[in-house]
Amino acid sequence: MKFTKHTKSDAMIFHQLFESDSSTFTYLIADPDSREALLIDPVRETVERDLQLLKDLELKLTATLETHVHADHLTGAQKLKSQTQCKIAYPAMVQSSCIDIGIKEGETFKLGHIELNPLFTPGHTDHHHAYLIDTPVQKFLFTGDALLIESCGRTDFQSGDAETLYNSIHNKIFSLPDETLVYPGHDYESRFITTVAQEKARNPRLGGGRSKEEFVEIMNNLDLPYPRKIDFAVPGNEKCGQCPDNIPEGLKGSCALHDQG
Amino acid sequence: MKFTKHTKSDAMIFHQLFESDSSTFTYLIADPDSREALLIDPVRETVERDLQLLKDLELKLTATLETHVHADHLTGAQKLKSQTQCKIAYPAMVQSSCIDIGIKEGETFKLGHIELNPLFTPGHTDHHHAYLIDTPVQKFLFTGDALLIESCGRTDFQSGDAETLYNSIHNKIFSLPDETLVYPGHDYESRFITTVAQEKARNPRLGGGRSKEEFVEIMNNLDLPYPRKIDFAVPGNEKCGQCPDNIPEGLKGSCALHDQG
Repeated sequence: MKFTKHTKSDAMIFHQLFESDSSTFTYLIADPDSREALLIDPVRETVERDLQLLKDLELKLTATLETHVHADHLTGAQKLKSQTQCKIAYPAMVQSSCIDIGIKEGETFKLGHIELNPLFTPGHTDHHHAYLIDTPVQKFLFTGDALLIESCGRTDFQSGDAETLYNSIHNKIFSLPDETLVYPGHDYESRFITTVAQEKARNPRLGGGRSKEEFVEIMNNLDLPYPRKIDFAVPGNEKCGQCPDNIPEGLKGSCALHDQG
Repeated sequence: MKFTKHTKSDAMIFHQLFESDSSTFTYLIADPDSREALLIDPVRETVERDLQLLKDLELKLTATLETHVHADHLTGAQKLKSQTQCKIAYPAMVQSSCIDIGIKEGETFKLGHIELNPLFTPGHTDHHHAYLIDTPVQKFLFTGDALLIESCGRTDFQSGDAETLYNSIHNKIFSLPDETLVYPGHDYESRFITTVAQEKARNPRLGGGRSKEEFVEIMNNLDLPYPRKIDFAVPGNEKCGQCPDNIPEGLKGSCALHDQG
């Protein structure tokens, strides 16, 4: 990967990063003037990569920001904070002593001159938020696990609810302009980007004008496997990515390294 | 479709438009300060829609810009010029008395404060150019028929050459940063956008590190049908989208309307 050091004012530094074990996208956003940086949905396994990138780009990590409490990976938030003194931001509905900033729809999150607008998008979880940056040239929407490329987050655990997710996607995401860039929280097929127009047209669960009833029917019949990391990931992420005690040996990932260090 | 009237400075107005008969994307780009607008690859059939949009957004069309001489549709250039007095821009290698501006790699095309950088990308045709706009937040690449989403332009007519196209895509497009937004000239499956990273990973003809030899083999064995509009589209587009005499009745499209008017 090659990265450019931007210097122009009014610019936004943006990089889309990928963690392959959980197929998670982490997004680096930074103000090139103030050099303040934010990581959306960092992953514990790729914290060293993220720190190296911040160093290479001469950026200061001021915050991590979660779309929700993840069930498929441990967030890198706590580990990043221990090394950079960044603040940890979560949706305010998640209450934990490790959280520094509670995010709510209607309250803009500022990063230098860049403004992120939280959109309350429950359904995958009851506290899920997407983040919209309305730049001077294009809207960037970070949809977390609400809307994925030709897919969406599952609704069968963590207070998930299919009807609620349908309403979130229609009212908060599909109501944005067609060209809005949609950057998802995951992709499992090497796709990186979609747009509101593309998902409205092609999403097999939601596109082509599918009704709420059709969507609920599809979601209730997915018959998905039990998530392999959920039993430790959810409690670990409620503590901002702290390694819990109950991680099976084969799934320790960066927690194994942590134990050794 | 709803469109926003931008007013901020440093912004770029951007809309992705679609013509369904030839599955062609037309791109509207405008400087919100000067209100100067450009249409990349306009289609004759959708000129009235484009004019209405320009009017709604209070923009002045200053130029049309082609990626190449199309074989699958008639450009809207001449028809737009007759109604707006815009300039007609083509790759300079296409020589015709109807062309006002000849485009070359290395010579920036300016639209108010917005700069388009032509990239010479032959292979689909011998004169094809892509256009790069390096905005303060993201690179926008308009790839015409060089690189399509999980596909590419055919190389079996109009001086096309598979090896040349492979070199163009690798040297001029895949060498751009991973996050570069790729806006193609067509899509036949309701997709709207891809990125350099996504095509490097997923394009079945070019991705996953396919060799030049593999690509040439694939392209030489596509066994595609003869394009239904090529016999009148190419000579018509060499005259900037003038309706030629030899259009079969069922394919007249906006030329039929033209004849009536």
